[in-house]
Amino acid sequence: MKIGVIGLGRMGANIVRRLMRGGHEVVVHNRSPEPVQELAKEGAIASTDLQDMRAKLGQSAIYWVMLPAGAVTDETIDEIAGFASPGDIIIDGGNSFYKDDIRRAKALRAKNLDYVDVGTSGGVWGLERGYCMMIGGDDAVVSKLDPIFATLAPGYGDIARTKGRDAADDRAERGYIHAGPAGAGHFVKMVHNGIEYGLMQAYAEGFDILKNKASELLPEDERFTLDLPDIAEVWRRGSVISSWLLDLSASALAKDGALDGFNGKVADSGEGHWTIEAAMEEAVPANVLSAALYARYRSRSENTYGEKLLSAMRFGFGGHVETPN
Amino acid sequence: MKIGVIGLGRMGANIVRRLMRGGHEVVVHNRSPEPVQELAKEGAIASTDLQDMRAKLGQSAIYWVMLPAGAVTDETIDEIAGFASPGDIIIDGGNSFYKDDIRRAKALRAKNLDYVDVGTSGGVWGLERGYCMMIGGDDAVVSKLDPIFATLAPGYGDIARTKGRDAADDRAERGYIHAGPAGAGHFVKMVHNGIEYGLMQAYAEGFDILKNKASELLPEDERFTLDLPDIAEVWRRGSVISSWLLDLSASALAKDGALDGFNGKVADSGEGHWTIEAAMEEAVPANVLSAALYARYRSRSENTYGEKLLSAMRFGFGGHVETPN
Amino acid sequence: MKIGVIGLGRMGANIVRRLMRGGHEVVVHNRSPEPVQELAKEGAIASTDLQDMRAKLGQSAIYWVMLPAGAVTDETIDEIAGFASPGDIIIDGGNSFYKDDIRRAKALRAKNLDYVDVGTSGGVWGLERGYCMMIGGDDAVVSKLDPIFATLAPGYGDIARTKGRDAADDRAERGYIHAGPAGAGHFVKMVHNGIEYGLMQAYAEGFDILKNKASELLPEDERFTLDLPDIAEVWRRGSVISSWLLDLSASALAKDGALDGFNGKVADSGEGHWTIEAAMEEAVPANVLSAALYARYRSRSENTYGEKLLSAMRFGFGGHVETPN
Amino acid sequence: MKIGVIGLGRMGANIVRRLMRGGHEVVVHNRSPEPVQELAKEGAIASTDLQDMRAKLGQSAIYWVMLPAGAVTDETIDEIAGFASPGDIIIDGGNSFYKDDIRRAKALRAKNLDYVDVGTSGGVWGLERGYCMMIGGDDAVVSKLDPIFATLAPGYGDIARTKGRDAADDRAERGYIHAGPAGAGHFVKMVHNGIEYGLMQAYAEGFDILKNKASELLPEDERFTLDLPDIAEVWRRGSVISSWLLDLSASALAKDGALDGFNGKVADSGEGHWTIEAAMEEAVPANVLSAALYARYRSRSENTYGEKLLSAMRFGFGGHVETPN
Repeated sequence: MKIGVIGLGRMGANIVRRLMRGGHEVVVHNRSPEPVQELAKEGAIASTDLQDMRAKLGQSAIYWVMLPAGAVTDETIDEIAGFASPGDIIIDGGNSFYKDDIRRAKALRAKNLDYVDVGTSGGVWGLERGYCMMIGGDDAVVSKLDPIFATLAPGYGDIARTKGRDAADDRAERGYIHAGPAGAGHFVKMVHNGIEYGLMQAYAEGFDILKNKASELLPEDERFTLDLPDIAEVWRRGSVISSWLLDLSASALAKDGALDGFNGKVADSGEGHWTIEAAMEEAVPANVLSAALYARYRSRSENTYGEKLLSAMRFGFGGHVETPN
Repeated sequence: MKIGVIGLGRMGANIVRRLMRGGHEVVVHNRSPEPVQELAKEGAIASTDLQDMRAKLGQSAIYWVMLPAGAVTDETIDEIAGFASPGDIIIDGGNSFYKDDIRRAKALRAKNLDYVDVGTSGGVWGLERGYCMMIGGDDAVVSKLDPIFATLAPGYGDIARTKGRDAADDRAERGYIHAGPAGAGHFVKMVHNGIEYGLMQAYAEGFDILKNKASELLPEDERFTLDLPDIAEVWRRGSVISSWLLDLSASALAKDGALDGFNGKVADSGEGHWTIEAAMEEAVPANVLSAALYARYRSRSENTYGEKLLSAMRFGFGGHVETPN
Repeated sequence: MKIGVIGLGRMGANIVRRLMRGGHEVVVHNRSPEPVQELAKEGAIASTDLQDMRAKLGQSAIYWVMLPAGAVTDETIDEIAGFASPGDIIIDGGNSFYKDDIRRAKALRAKNLDYVDVGTSGGVWGLERGYCMMIGGDDAVVSKLDPIFATLAPGYGDIARTKGRDAADDRAERGYIHAGPAGAGHFVKMVHNGIEYGLMQAYAEGFDILKNKASELLPEDERFTLDLPDIAEVWRRGSVISSWLLDLSASALAKDGALDGFNGKVADSGEGHWTIEAAMEEAVPANVLSAALYARYRSRSENTYGEKLLSAMRFGFGGHVETPN
Repeated sequence: MKIGVIGLGRMGANIVRRLMRGGHEVVVHNRSPEPVQELAKEGAIASTDLQDMRAKLGQSAIYWVMLPAGAVTDETIDEIAGFASPGDIIIDGGNSFYKDDIRRAKALRAKNLDYVDVGTSGGVWGLERGYCMMIGGDDAVVSKLDPIFATLAPGYGDIARTKGRDAADDRAERGYIHAGPAGAGHFVKMVHNGIEYGLMQAYAEGFDILKNKASELLPEDERFTLDLPDIAEVWRRGSVISSWLLDLSASALAKDGALDGFNGKVADSGEGHWTIEAAMEEAVPANVLSAALYARYRSRSENTYGEKLLSAMRFGFGGHVETPN
């Protein structure tokens, strides 16, 4: 198929490459020109602006918007909607908030434009492993785009089939699903990232406990100095907690068991936060996912005002003097 | 009554004072001599060592041990048990682990010595407000000691009577209870401290949210610069969350709303930890009490190894580079 | 002053009574007529609808809206705004989301109407104890309303003055504050309720641990059957964790230590949820406040789908069969 | 090698089978005779009691104890120690608390007996996939046992090598490690299980949020009815959160997306609890691992006493009446 891709960051550029490898024609655009030129050398069709892209896509155009933030995505979609023709399809493949998808789909529907949201997982590994995609939008439109998704997805690969699975629809087994109407794709991707935070924090706490088993807080005969790279490695093999995140941990630890190259000030994107909002709207208890998010907040902070208030109270009732500033 | 008090730190010394004000004769001992001399000037009977105290207490001696840590308490009790006569009573008024009480009571019972554990709350304010006491031990022994407890406790004071209360035993209303057999006193005190951590952390998080409402993370028209001393003050008056800890917070904030004198590296004594152990032994979910304890651990730490592992994983799957060290 | 009060539920009716006791003239309205008639007997001026209230308030009218939910509050404010004259003041004394206040104040400002939001704590006890109020709005308007707030607030009462406090503004000490521009009142009240959830949950977990110290999960010689009404009572007296919520707990336990009259399915109003949203917007870790909220969600639920998934995984890797349904 | 295995439950029996397949001679014993007879048919050497096993093992005997609980393991080890000869080796392959290992190793050392603890992961899948083993004990003894471990472990298999790994010791890559002195094996296994609880709970919360996206608590146009079996499947393929636990979840969901066969009352073994104890001893914040454990406690409980206290407090301050019992 022919498709335009707007936004050629790490994810966007690799998506273009994987599409081209799959035989699709890709018109590309980016705010700064370098990635456009680079991909043009690899076979993509360069475009100077969105109007130029429109001309190069022709009728029944498909736009894949792959931009980092909500505001710039909204602007871009508005610009496309300003000139698009009925039947054109706009795909948001970024990390939009799913309620924005619901709103956009309604607005575009009024102009006879189709909107599809695609939550895309795969990170820097997607070009090689394929992208896991969670898609929201109308049935007919999602079906029309199937060749695109089939190319981007990992495909069956050599992953063992799930026992007991006999669903008629094999898209999930090839690495993409049509999750529901507009918004459903990003909603499922959002929860995916919420879970990701929880999984990561579970490993983080466990390795912290292993590391600190050598701590001087412990009686001498209860201390162990453990080999964390070896532990991560052995858990990859036959244990209940093997996972891709553990593979990555093992790789990082193999390079430097002390992790001295990392400062541990951990960013979070909106998805963790939105997942907690969704949990609260549904009255679902989500202690683990919240705690994972909060650990990141705290990692980026010095001692908090709240902690100082604890010190102040302790001084108040017990005369406890904390280590002076 | 006549009683020996061993350990004249802040709590111990004030307990001696309150006992003397109540007309009791108090023999005192301390590792370093200064507090002994000071209290002797105020009317206490100095003793040079435990044997000397024994001589000065005479028959049916009562020893109140008020020492900071488990190990030194055990040593002291062992030393007393070595020379004590049947019918002597040893009281541990410190913060012992209740399972140590159970063990000690058994061992002393075999020597016809009585053991009583007293969980004592009141901090530096106890001399003035009285001590809230939770007592474990045999009925007869606790009854024999009643004049001691009645003196140390706050008494009715001007605290409003609890509606609907018509218990025959008015000791709770005077500020002390006989909680159960040996260990029960410290167990109740331990849970008291566990709750204390939870309450403190609830205020800490709330004030943190108030403080950060001026944060640049927020859109400008959603920022407020709030007067935290005033807020603490107003909540003392008619609000649902008024409490003694809030009174202390209001006082600290009245002095310095920025709390600049505190570094927020918050210590914890064993009770919070033991409370969580008890919760786990009983299969009671205790998310709030655990989170309060963990916040203290984290407050004393730089970025943890676990946080570095999070950074390492993020780099692994997304190529995210954290702010370099 | 003369003031109209719309919404005569438990809170609204008592606010009217306290205002009348303070010498204010109060015009009242309510969807159902009974509370209007009842308050009219006590001296209030009945009104049949908002237009009638307007007529009875005359110029420079002040409307205090005291309705339970956001939607109906919005409708009512819109209706008032439809007929109000420049300089009229609309107060929302309910539990609105503070971002709604910011929005409303802007909209009303465009019509030269003033908007004030009042977070009101005090529950069923407010008539007697006075209401603790957190107020948002323009300085001049809040000042104009001062006689109203001064009447509703508890006043100095017999609460001990905070040591070290020498603020020029004594409103906080009389039980109300002007927290900031529109929205600030409800924001502070929202965080107040968030803290309230945390405090309540800390006590709940503590008492759960005390209660289950008699559990058969424990070795027989480590079980205690504790007197929970007495423990709540004694903690009111000289302990670090005394509070108004503990007073209420002691009262409930004095009536029935088993709490058999309560089923423990605990509702939550929006404030706990919004407090967590605010924490996330500010990147403040709030584990305790979140856990308190989640405990309420879980209390209202049967075994969750997530728990079933845990069972399913355990069966998958270990062949563990849970107790059958 | 020749080895005795005591305890032929699911794990023990499969360990025997995998050892026999690897060419080892295995003498077996079990409290009830059926598993002994069954394994004898498959080639194992039956023994009637431990003395009989001793006779059949001959000199330099190796005993692998594979029993479910601490008490019976201690008894069995004591019995073996009663008749064993210097140089005999006792292995505990069960889920002992690592401090018991430290204690046992000391006691056996005094009798010139060697003790090795093996934390074994693999569940019902171990026979097929191999067992991931974490081993504690003296170097020389662990080396002597290497043929046993090499057989039981998964071996390289087709798992991709960790990038950057160039450790001289390839045991971790074959699925077992010598973690340190006695106790270190079970300690690492304990943390493994703590992490396992955290991972499981992260998935559980995420799927709960997906499931409840159809809840009537939400506005109609924000509800999605999601296909959970498909979501689990697609996440196995190229997503960041793929893992073996997700594979198991996908399999369970493929069979029944409603999970109606499970009641969600989730058991916990000691490891989760001990992991939290270790975290507290080391002052490591472990909110996620704690929350995962607590979710299991709550899943097995009706409404708690603590929740009733929340209801009672709410009734106290707000007159809130919960849904009656």
